[in-house]
Amino acid sequence: MRYVGNKVEDLKIAYIGGGSRGWAKTFICDLAQTEDMCGEIALYDVDYEAAKMNEAIGNGVKKLAGCVSPWVYKTYKTLGEALDGADFVIISITPGTYDEMGSDLHTPEKYGIYQSVGDTTGPAGVIRSLRMIPMMEEIALAVKEHCPKAWVINYSNPMSVCTRSLYAAWPEIKAFGCCHEVFGVQKLLARALKECRGIDGVDRTEVKVDVTGVNHFTWFTKAQYRDIDLIPVWEEFMEKFPEGYLENVDKNWMNDNFSCAHLIKYDLYKRFGYIATAADRHLAEFCPKDWYLSSPERVAEWKFALTPISWRKSHQEFNDKKSKRIMNGEEEFKFWKTGEEGIDQMRALLGLKDMVTNVNIPNYGQVPNLPIGACVEVNAMFTADNVVPVYAGPIPKGIYPLISSIVGEQEMIVEAGMERDLEKGFAAFTADPMVTLSQQDARALFDEMVDNTKEYLKDYFK
Amino acid sequence: MRYVGNKVEDLKIAYIGGGSRGWAKTFICDLAQTEDMCGEIALYDVDYEAAKMNEAIGNGVKKLAGCVSPWVYKTYKTLGEALDGADFVIISITPGTYDEMGSDLHTPEKYGIYQSVGDTTGPAGVIRSLRMIPMMEEIALAVKEHCPKAWVINYSNPMSVCTRSLYAAWPEIKAFGCCHEVFGVQKLLARALKECRGIDGVDRTEVKVDVTGVNHFTWFTKAQYRDIDLIPVWEEFMEKFPEGYLENVDKNWMNDNFSCAHLIKYDLYKRFGYIATAADRHLAEFCPKDWYLSSPERVAEWKFALTPISWRKSHQEFNDKKSKRIMNGEEEFKFWKTGEEGIDQMRALLGLKDMVTNVNIPNYGQVPNLPIGACVEVNAMFTADNVVPVYAGPIPKGIYPLISSIVGEQEMIVEAGMERDLEKGFAAFTADPMVTLSQQDARALFDEMVDNTKEYLKDYFK
Amino acid sequence: MRYVGNKVEDLKIAYIGGGSRGWAKTFICDLAQTEDMCGEIALYDVDYEAAKMNEAIGNGVKKLAGCVSPWVYKTYKTLGEALDGADFVIISITPGTYDEMGSDLHTPEKYGIYQSVGDTTGPAGVIRSLRMIPMMEEIALAVKEHCPKAWVINYSNPMSVCTRSLYAAWPEIKAFGCCHEVFGVQKLLARALKECRGIDGVDRTEVKVDVTGVNHFTWFTKAQYRDIDLIPVWEEFMEKFPEGYLENVDKNWMNDNFSCAHLIKYDLYKRFGYIATAADRHLAEFCPKDWYLSSPERVAEWKFALTPISWRKSHQEFNDKKSKRIMNGEEEFKFWKTGEEGIDQMRALLGLKDMVTNVNIPNYGQVPNLPIGACVEVNAMFTADNVVPVYAGPIPKGIYPLISSIVGEQEMIVEAGMERDLEKGFAAFTADPMVTLSQQDARALFDEMVDNTKEYLKDYFK
Amino acid sequence: MRYVGNKVEDLKIAYIGGGSRGWAKTFICDLAQTEDMCGEIALYDVDYEAAKMNEAIGNGVKKLAGCVSPWVYKTYKTLGEALDGADFVIISITPGTYDEMGSDLHTPEKYGIYQSVGDTTGPAGVIRSLRMIPMMEEIALAVKEHCPKAWVINYSNPMSVCTRSLYAAWPEIKAFGCCHEVFGVQKLLARALKECRGIDGVDRTEVKVDVTGVNHFTWFTKAQYRDIDLIPVWEEFMEKFPEGYLENVDKNWMNDNFSCAHLIKYDLYKRFGYIATAADRHLAEFCPKDWYLSSPERVAEWKFALTPISWRKSHQEFNDKKSKRIMNGEEEFKFWKTGEEGIDQMRALLGLKDMVTNVNIPNYGQVPNLPIGACVEVNAMFTADNVVPVYAGPIPKGIYPLISSIVGEQEMIVEAGMERDLEKGFAAFTADPMVTLSQQDARALFDEMVDNTKEYLKDYFK
Repeated sequence: MRYVGNKVEDLKIAYIGGGSRGWAKTFICDLAQTEDMCGEIALYDVDYEAAKMNEAIGNGVKKLAGCVSPWVYKTYKTLGEALDGADFVIISITPGTYDEMGSDLHTPEKYGIYQSVGDTTGPAGVIRSLRMIPMMEEIALAVKEHCPKAWVINYSNPMSVCTRSLYAAWPEIKAFGCCHEVFGVQKLLARALKECRGIDGVDRTEVKVDVTGVNHFTWFTKAQYRDIDLIPVWEEFMEKFPEGYLENVDKNWMNDNFSCAHLIKYDLYKRFGYIATAADRHLAEFCPKDWYLSSPERVAEWKFALTPISWRKSHQEFNDKKSKRIMNGEEEFKFWKTGEEGIDQMRALLGLKDMVTNVNIPNYGQVPNLPIGACVEVNAMFTADNVVPVYAGPIPKGIYPLISSIVGEQEMIVEAGMERDLEKGFAAFTADPMVTLSQQDARALFDEMVDNTKEYLKDYFK
Repeated sequence: MRYVGNKVEDLKIAYIGGGSRGWAKTFICDLAQTEDMCGEIALYDVDYEAAKMNEAIGNGVKKLAGCVSPWVYKTYKTLGEALDGADFVIISITPGTYDEMGSDLHTPEKYGIYQSVGDTTGPAGVIRSLRMIPMMEEIALAVKEHCPKAWVINYSNPMSVCTRSLYAAWPEIKAFGCCHEVFGVQKLLARALKECRGIDGVDRTEVKVDVTGVNHFTWFTKAQYRDIDLIPVWEEFMEKFPEGYLENVDKNWMNDNFSCAHLIKYDLYKRFGYIATAADRHLAEFCPKDWYLSSPERVAEWKFALTPISWRKSHQEFNDKKSKRIMNGEEEFKFWKTGEEGIDQMRALLGLKDMVTNVNIPNYGQVPNLPIGACVEVNAMFTADNVVPVYAGPIPKGIYPLISSIVGEQEMIVEAGMERDLEKGFAAFTADPMVTLSQQDARALFDEMVDNTKEYLKDYFK
Repeated sequence: MRYVGNKVEDLKIAYIGGGSRGWAKTFICDLAQTEDMCGEIALYDVDYEAAKMNEAIGNGVKKLAGCVSPWVYKTYKTLGEALDGADFVIISITPGTYDEMGSDLHTPEKYGIYQSVGDTTGPAGVIRSLRMIPMMEEIALAVKEHCPKAWVINYSNPMSVCTRSLYAAWPEIKAFGCCHEVFGVQKLLARALKECRGIDGVDRTEVKVDVTGVNHFTWFTKAQYRDIDLIPVWEEFMEKFPEGYLENVDKNWMNDNFSCAHLIKYDLYKRFGYIATAADRHLAEFCPKDWYLSSPERVAEWKFALTPISWRKSHQEFNDKKSKRIMNGEEEFKFWKTGEEGIDQMRALLGLKDMVTNVNIPNYGQVPNLPIGACVEVNAMFTADNVVPVYAGPIPKGIYPLISSIVGEQEMIVEAGMERDLEKGFAAFTADPMVTLSQQDARALFDEMVDNTKEYLKDYFK
Repeated sequence: MRYVGNKVEDLKIAYIGGGSRGWAKTFICDLAQTEDMCGEIALYDVDYEAAKMNEAIGNGVKKLAGCVSPWVYKTYKTLGEALDGADFVIISITPGTYDEMGSDLHTPEKYGIYQSVGDTTGPAGVIRSLRMIPMMEEIALAVKEHCPKAWVINYSNPMSVCTRSLYAAWPEIKAFGCCHEVFGVQKLLARALKECRGIDGVDRTEVKVDVTGVNHFTWFTKAQYRDIDLIPVWEEFMEKFPEGYLENVDKNWMNDNFSCAHLIKYDLYKRFGYIATAADRHLAEFCPKDWYLSSPERVAEWKFALTPISWRKSHQEFNDKKSKRIMNGEEEFKFWKTGEEGIDQMRALLGLKDMVTNVNIPNYGQVPNLPIGACVEVNAMFTADNVVPVYAGPIPKGIYPLISSIVGEQEMIVEAGMERDLEKGFAAFTADPMVTLSQQDARALFDEMVDNTKEYLKDYFK
């Protein structure tokens, strides 16, 4: 890369998982609208054709009005070639196909464990992690070889486990995990300001928050808008909408289908005293299954939704068709405001701006009562070639049991994955709050889930 | 008190809960056989007559052969009088009657939660704590007023919560909690040495252990006999007795009725990699109910036993009759080796000997990845007027999720109790691993348990 | 205060030490040019007339071109009235007159201890602290009473001790200490970029730094401009200018008279491996006197300057005359770019912008190998009603001895001051690196310095 | 080794530096009187003949009355042979001859730095460390190769640096450093009990102490005899003997020639509030030279003594002659009570007894406000194959500046030595509190000291 005035040119961004049908468009959209960065997007995907399709789409947007930055998209056949000389590496992959994910999601239902997402925690999260960790290890070692100074931005789930594994594989890696779940709750608080105080038009970035916890199970320890403490506002909001708040507060495409009434947020707040900052569908999966997820009826009572694999498959098909139409010129690519922060984080790392936002990075001591090295999500300062966490302090009393046990479980999973040790994997599986089964049932379920996905667990059987 | 050569005379030991029918005899027995300490035992109990009975028994042993130390037993009508000028304070109380304990134990069975002890954790432990904390606060404040330099030895359960509450009420208190559960597992390892290595006659004190965790949920991070690492011995032992080891390894009267086959210890070891060091009946209660305690049949499979309140009541009656017979001269008090360490701890605090043993004290940093201030059980050095914990280090990865969440829950309970806040109590209740119920069920159970015991929860309703 | 669009009106800023002849003009200048804040400046000073003069000057600038914000300046007779209802409190005071400071500075010269500033550390810093701490205590308690929600910004030296004392007096205070010394070294690195790499026009805010240490003895653990690591640049710079770099790099009025050749920075870097980030005149005072300050000749060798009290007195006189001329209309107040950050910090605390900058706040754990509670200077995130330090991590090996002993000494001073205990003050005095005297000499010097300033140490003789 | 009843036979103890003329006799004496341990002492020394002399002496004591344990002494020509299969390794070496030590001690006198011991800290300690660290590295790596399970007991000075270097070279080493300085201050407190309270006959082991700090600069944070807090007793003692206490309190041969009046202990206590627990000759060297060591006259004022190299040489000659006389049968070896704890520590590690005593080990967190990994001296529990430090807590405020800077300096020295980097060595040298010289003088002194001892610093010039 090189700096030309206040612009960086000839950047190389490697995009692992570059055959994505969904998020790739968001990324293309953001890049095209970024004035002060330009260069090459090096696509790599195990599905080469899918990456080629994004290459075509990406190169196609250059001619559109509104495209201020003509990025070159190029697909590579090997991971190493994509990484060679990269300045940034984006990781956005899934471990296996939707069939594996279908097993993760639905096999536990036999034992009364319903999962609303199935990519983060719970039995699905553990098994998915076992598939994912060796992939992350491979990527980390390839980064070490091909572009050791690159910043690595992970979007893959389970976020905490994936990011942690990158560091487990190569401790010097400059990696962090990036997730937009917190934004949704900032928007919800902005909505509460409107509903309860009549203050309209507050942008989510004006809702200043102290964040702590782990990805998809983060919590606000402070929330403030100007001189207004938002905690009492949140309490008023719960009182004003006792049945929950169903109006969609987040127009972001990704969250759009996944609305909830925030009743789980209510419930956790009332019991533990802090606002949990993810969609209810994520929060539910970190709790004992009987709280919110023991049956579809229970899920309906709590006014959120399961995301069955059938939905994902049809959504994928929809996206795939859309990609093809764009590639074939049957549909025009349209720019929109994505609301993602990834580009700004890169700009900050290039020294083009400063920013503070929540990210997933190792615990160096910023959360002193959680294990050192575990992956936590707290605010961090982004500046030139630097990500420094804020000192978040100890996890508060009310939420410590929930968070510490999850973090501990994630540490067990990463160890299991790095050592390719299924027995340690089973230990983590049984330590999961959702898996409140007898030993016999837990073992049977684990074995079945492993067997269903063994194609992607070959490393564990060597 | 005063030192006469190597002996301490005119000691005053206040015994809160001095009307005990069981443990009081152990204490009387130990005291009578201690050559280098003598003085007064100041009995105090809400049941004055019960204390008077122990006064009679205690004063009666002086004339027996084998009594080397003629202690004076005296019953006081008020807590303050018993404490005035005391050098040591023993706390061994129960919060309420066996009716309350019966509710603690058996009400949750309606929801499939069977409890094997019901005095430490689980729903019973939470509700018992709520009754206990105000009592502990009262005692701590009375110690502050009447004998601020006294060492306070707590034997009451829930041990961790009670000891923690003493410090919460008065941070300068010199208190620790004393429990013999760890001894049983040292004995078990000595037995394993015999069974697997043919080494006989090893005393439990020769089994050197590094202990960490919380009371009744402690773990060995190292176990050694001379030059023999006992971890491989333990693994051989599990292999040699795959159905468990039923022979009673602990002749101590208290554990005698509570034998187990150690299958839960096996199971926890296999999954998490460390030896849990309490009787299985205790260990089970710290785990999700479906692991070991979801039904009497499951308990039987795991080869341990429930202790129903009916057993406690009849055992109490038996003890009561025995006390009366002794008092009336119908039965002779017999000395035996109790195996308790309380007296030796006092002797160490008086500077008469040194000792290192496991105790329950606040976490000053000896377990750096658990909350500061929480009550932990690790080894400590006892010398003149001093108890200093060893540096136990971070809780290891495999057992961190289980332990950290329990410690966190206990911190929540203590806060709930100190603030007399039932809602915080309910939060802790739902954070308990045994309480894997829906919110509705959890609330209904909590309310019923509170209602059943409301006589002893008046402080919470002011 | 109240928000009107993106502007805050009716702010009340209490200015303790509002009779300042120097910095007050900077503050007036900055305020007048701030578009989104307006309100009242409540001046308070033990020299009422001096404050009245600033009132006149401050109210006078409203009519000048370039004044976008018409603040009202008002002088109060009591501290309480000035603080009542304040949103911010500025503390910028000196403890006593220049006569006391003259004693601080020059009495140690009898023992071969020359001091280049005399307001931070060394014998002068200790004695000045003893006068200052009771004043800080008084202010903190008045804030608690009159405006407990106000943010308190301290500019007084010794910065670390003063800020620490505010928290010692009232732990809930929302205070931080603000200093521009670090900026000068950012500018120096920008200059090095020009001299060694030919990159011109880099603003100091583009020099991104990780800062750690204590005020006036801070260090960069990382310095970066865009993709350029500035540490090698700094090494080139030292090589290119082996005799030091004398050209003034900092046009800020306050530093203007205090230029140095940075040879002490060179020397400390070569030995300890990190760039110290204050003017050499400050750095020298944190080291044993024989390093840089044992005689005026030695000072000259190291190419920095002493600031004798005579200079301060004449400079004060100059400022005083200037103030009077402005007040009397004989000279026009001119706006300039002050380079100070105080206003932006306030704007950030009001939620009008975000910023990250170095500040002085208690060590909550952001520097884990320094004492908890001590005042450290690290980067912090400023947002609405919130200052959160970044996690700076442990002080690195090479500079730990120097920093840890200074922080320890400051903790001793604060204890001495809070307890009004001169003997503890003497202990801190002898622990100071500059005071490498025999006990007899140290005592004689301490006693003389105390006696010279006893007018302001009355609290210690009660 | 093997256990026969309660005795361990066939132990192999490697003794590195086994040609010692002094301490070897102590060790032989202790071993001969130890009933429950027997085996071989494998002597190794760069001076083979000196080791052979001790072999003869050691084997000779077997026939003496009072010898209960017939150890076999055998001299080896290589380090590896001596270590092969060892159960324990004793390290008691000096780096170079007394000529090097003479340079360490006396060269700094040109700059007004007098040193009373010259083997621990100060300029002598730094230069000695530079010679020592490569030797320690060699030993640690040889232990790793030849007897990785052996416990390594270091007696060499500088104790902290040597012990730290063993861990720096091989982190898994089971090593600790053993020193008897603390014992002398326990004896002094026992004497104070006699002088001030009339309590006679108290053994030093009955003086229970909490110890913290670094070797030769340790401090009591608590001292207790039975129910008597010894801090007020110490204060009475200082008052009763305002000119110091000269009567020899320690009959141990090694301290016998090194008596002091404890005035430095008085001085440090009065200023910093804690009892320093080493002989004054050691304490003085940790402080700025002008406090106690700026001239022989100053030393005399403080009533302690310098130990010139001439004394060491003549003492060595005396010991050498004595050894020869014993070897030749002209003098009989006599057993005495040595007061050393080394043998008991070994017995504890063999599981034959438990003990708690102060040792030098890495800081795992037992002193949380000192750097992790640095070598600290605190109490530790010794049991079978285990040394666990007690949790000593943060260094208290009054002594933190002195201790933290010394620990930091030692960390710098170890890094300099491990990296064979003389420039880092010079940085540590100038960070030493005794070296309050100008840069020019410090450099000249350092260079001269290095040059004088370059024979033993060859590694640094490669």
